Amino acid sequence: MAGDQELKLLGSWASPFVIRARIALNLKGVGYEFLEEGLGTKSELLLKSNPVYKQIPVLIHNGKPICESMIIVQYIDEVWAAAGPSILPSDPYDRAIARFWAVYIDDKWFPLLWKIIIAKADDEETAEAAEQVIAGLQLLEEAFEKCSKGKDFFGGKSVGCIDIALGCYFGWVKAAEKMAGVKLLDKEKIPLLMGWAERFCSADAVKELMPEVDKLIEHGKMVRARLNAAATN
Amino acid sequence: MAGDQELKLLGSWASPFVIRARIALNLKGVGYEFLEEGLGTKSELLLKSNPVYKQIPVLIHNGKPICESMIIVQYIDEVWAAAGPSILPSDPYDRAIARFWAVYIDDKWFPLLWKIIIAKADDEETAEAAEQVIAGLQLLEEAFEKCSKGKDFFGGKSVGCIDIALGCYFGWVKAAEKMAGVKLLDKEKIPLLMGWAERFCSADAVKELMPEVDKLIEHGKMVRARLNAAATN
Repeated sequence: MAGDQELKLLGSWASPFVIRARIALNLKGVGYEFLEEGLGTKSELLLKSNPVYKQIPVLIHNGKPICESMIIVQYIDEVWAAAGPSILPSDPYDRAIARFWAVYIDDKWFPLLWKIIIAKADDEETAEAAEQVIAGLQLLEEAFEKCSKGKDFFGGKSVGCIDIALGCYFGWVKAAEKMAGVKLLDKEKIPLLMGWAERFCSADAVKELMPEVDKLIEHGKMVRARLNAAATN
Repeated sequence: MAGDQELKLLGSWASPFVIRARIALNLKGVGYEFLEEGLGTKSELLLKSNPVYKQIPVLIHNGKPICESMIIVQYIDEVWAAAGPSILPSDPYDRAIARFWAVYIDDKWFPLLWKIIIAKADDEETAEAAEQVIAGLQLLEEAFEKCSKGKDFFGGKSVGCIDIALGCYFGWVKAAEKMAGVKLLDKEKIPLLMGWAERFCSADAVKELMPEVDKLIEHGKMVRARLNAAATN
């Protein structure tokens, strides 16, 4: 807890969206109570706190719920502005660019990765999605060059908004590679991003949060089975 | 132009997303050059300025492009922070709530409205989409009650983030009603929102920008014909 503040995070260890909120809280050095939601179950507190989406993560700060991972990240950055490095850049143009890539990652890039994870077999559609995931990473490689300006992270010297938005998926990218037998992370194609990923995963605010790939694969298979069962019912 | 600043907006009169940027610029009293992109054509400047999405609106500020309507709105709010009313609330929690509804409106609500606009006939699917559009408006009616705290707008005394995010669609809601022969705006179901819409459309920063419904219908029919032609080719 941060002083007299009550801070709860409803989440799951495997959710990349939950990992975002946790990295942001770690960056600011803010303590919180983590309440794990089981796969396929939703607590009363979750249903009450996020009635529109009924989804994790939800950050509950002094009884007030905040939903949607990147909105939570910005909230944490604004409430604990002085407590750690800025997650959003200070310059309005750089902020706009950070928001642009965060939206791109979620709206355009991640759905393709997800397609690979929940695919029934290594079919043509998976191969096509894999190509698009790689093309997206190459776009982000260019973005990294521009945003990092030769420093370690998209955010410069420390982990920032785009780092969190993309980095949270890193374990799932590795899991997708193994689950579908495709190569997504290629040093020849995305040399800067491969170096960045290594630095990101070993950053203090991040390292304890990155799930083991084998556990993610196991979890991914369960999710896939549930989705397939729902589709055939 | 604002002093020695060069400000261009690439857009189209009918696009709700472009209207957002224009309302924000009006609120801040910032002059700009408006460059109209024709339906189905994309200028070289647009392709160069938004290579990822190739979509309007793009705001070009001293040669630097900013893409995605709500990111542009936040950029304008941050760059011209002192020039007019704040578009985002000052309190971090209120900001998170404003961002939450803006995302909801675009990701969940608008796609349903769009389904009605581009529907081929007033079929069962359209009726279902209309019901969901109304349910979404009822959710936003509740949000209005909480956010406005008895004042005129979601943003309180003046037009703010949610007002812009939702209000830009108002003409299209009326167009959808006429195009599909459905009733979406019902004083019995959304009394507060109906009052809000009237105030929003006659606000100084907004009134000159709201397109005539008949012109939108004509435009909507052209878009629909293009989409149907593309689908059958």
